[in-house]
Amino acid sequence: MTVKLPDACLDQLFREARTHNAWRDEAVADELLHAIVDLAMLGPTSANCSPARFIFVKSHEAKERLKPHLSEGNRDKTMKAPVCTIIGYDFDFYQHLPKLFPHTDAKSWFEGKEEKIAETAFRNGTLQGAYLIMATRALGLDCGPMSGFDNAGVDREFFAGTNVKSNFLCSLGHGDRAALFPRSPRFSFDEMARIV
Amino acid sequence: MTVKLPDACLDQLFREARTHNAWRDEAVADELLHAIVDLAMLGPTSANCSPARFIFVKSHEAKERLKPHLSEGNRDKTMKAPVCTIIGYDFDFYQHLPKLFPHTDAKSWFEGKEEKIAETAFRNGTLQGAYLIMATRALGLDCGPMSGFDNAGVDREFFAGTNVKSNFLCSLGHGDRAALFPRSPRFSFDEMARIV
Repeated sequence: MTVKLPDACLDQLFREARTHNAWRDEAVADELLHAIVDLAMLGPTSANCSPARFIFVKSHEAKERLKPHLSEGNRDKTMKAPVCTIIGYDFDFYQHLPKLFPHTDAKSWFEGKEEKIAETAFRNGTLQGAYLIMATRALGLDCGPMSGFDNAGVDREFFAGTNVKSNFLCSLGHGDRAALFPRSPRFSFDEMARIV
Repeated sequence: MTVKLPDACLDQLFREARTHNAWRDEAVADELLHAIVDLAMLGPTSANCSPARFIFVKSHEAKERLKPHLSEGNRDKTMKAPVCTIIGYDFDFYQHLPKLFPHTDAKSWFEGKEEKIAETAFRNGTLQGAYLIMATRALGLDCGPMSGFDNAGVDREFFAGTNVKSNFLCSLGHGDRAALFPRSPRFSFDEMARIV
């Protein structure tokens, strides 16, 4: 039996959580990155296809490899984040279905179907990116997701020799709340949803 | 200052949460659907573009409209769920950016750029679909997300006259844990992530 989580949890996950652009000078331990992945990988994907691939860019050297591919507005803040995660998705995900979905031949649902492969990888890899954001917040860190970068450049630098493509980036760390802008407006329920 | 959420919360959101296919006969109040959207809409999207549109299919009449478009394996279980949510994404999302991202002319970033519109709508609409899943679990309900349906048929039936396209479906309610299969295997950290 599950119940509504305490308001303090809902605040941390949703209501008080914000996209951060400035970071306190506190390192993020590798163990915490493992804990984030351990939670995020449990979120649902279709046929458990799990196409997301995560690269946690943490060392100075790796950040320098990422830097030239960031849009100018994202460059400085990303260099100052303790970690920037590259969320990618693997077009070869279906090769792993005999392991991930062993009770049927799910691999054959995709073989040779390029459009279905691309759509499934993008949809489910993006879902897993959102699970990563929620897991990060659940473990007490802040996120700064962003789309402004040269995807092809990041792919060449970090995913060469694979069929993985970059999806979006997400900085992780302890955000500086003093640097936040007010939250942007949201739709009302009726503007984005209906009950029929 | 945020901290790691209590283990009971992490269990409910990730570790014990499962994709449900069988549902207890308990209605879901409209107020709870509003509460889910109120949380999910707070999750981050690029430039706050918020392209997701949610239709909560709850009445018998609406379920009958959905039924012929479901794959056979999804049909009966979906008819028995208290609510099935159609998660769609609006290709006209950028028309709303003067409201949602008022401090700059973000609308002009998209006008006339069909490929960028489609990719941004799909990526961010999918992120919001994942936020809906997490918000639903956070409020004590279970989810049953699925991709097996005729997207074009659902679009004709539920999104006619708009530029909204269906993305995936997600049943909501109180799941019957007795009907769950064991969780499918996941990757190890090293198979899906690395720290550089």
